[in-house]
Amino acid sequence: MSDVETVSQSQIKWDKDGLIAAIIQDADSGAVLTLAYMSAESLQQSLDIGQTVFWSRSRSEIWHKGATSGHTQDIVSLSLDCDGDALLVRVRTHGPACHTGADTCFHRDLNEFTRKA
Amino acid sequence: MSDVETVSQSQIKWDKDGLIAAIIQDADSGAVLTLAYMSAESLQQSLDIGQTVFWSRSRSEIWHKGATSGHTQDIVSLSLDCDGDALLVRVRTHGPACHTGADTCFHRDLNEFTRKA
Repeated sequence: MSDVETVSQSQIKWDKDGLIAAIIQDADSGAVLTLAYMSAESLQQSLDIGQTVFWSRSRSEIWHKGATSGHTQDIVSLSLDCDGDALLVRVRTHGPACHTGADTCFHRDLNEFTRKA
Repeated sequence: MSDVETVSQSQIKWDKDGLIAAIIQDADSGAVLTLAYMSAESLQQSLDIGQTVFWSRSRSEIWHKGATSGHTQDIVSLSLDCDGDALLVRVRTHGPACHTGADTCFHRDLNEFTRKA
């Protein structure tokens, strides 16, 4: 789109743990794959290698997605939201996004909603 | 998809502030619109009225999206991620998602990445 602004990393508002939420979206299908978190260091590594690198909050370590499984994600675009505290990362995948083997981490529907719908 | 599980709200892992991140996606275009947060109360209200109701972290209050602007979001589906700490909410919109008037809150590209791409 012609009305897209560009911004720099300096406009990111890191949270109190020094992280930013990163929504990972399949650039081809549009499917939302994962909500992950990036530190400044993992974002820089993502920019450097052109693949998603996260901060694992459970393991407290840098996590190059797919480094073990081979299911890496090539970054197509990186956008910052209006208030600077969330990233949208559009990717091309090499295998499933979820550690369960599902294409997306969002493969469970809330049945309370299903019942009402 | 036939392999979608259903889960209940009891499987949500609320964060230490009692919130869960909610990715809002346009059910028709697939565009990711907003990353917002829900409390248990705002999630229940969302389920009750079938529209997005968030917890505003900046204002510390329940926030029925569109209550003032008219830009409400009807919920089409609600999914929980594999580790229970993020929601994907697919919606039909009535107006722009972003308070700036943009269709999506993710309308700013990171120029560090644009340069490298």
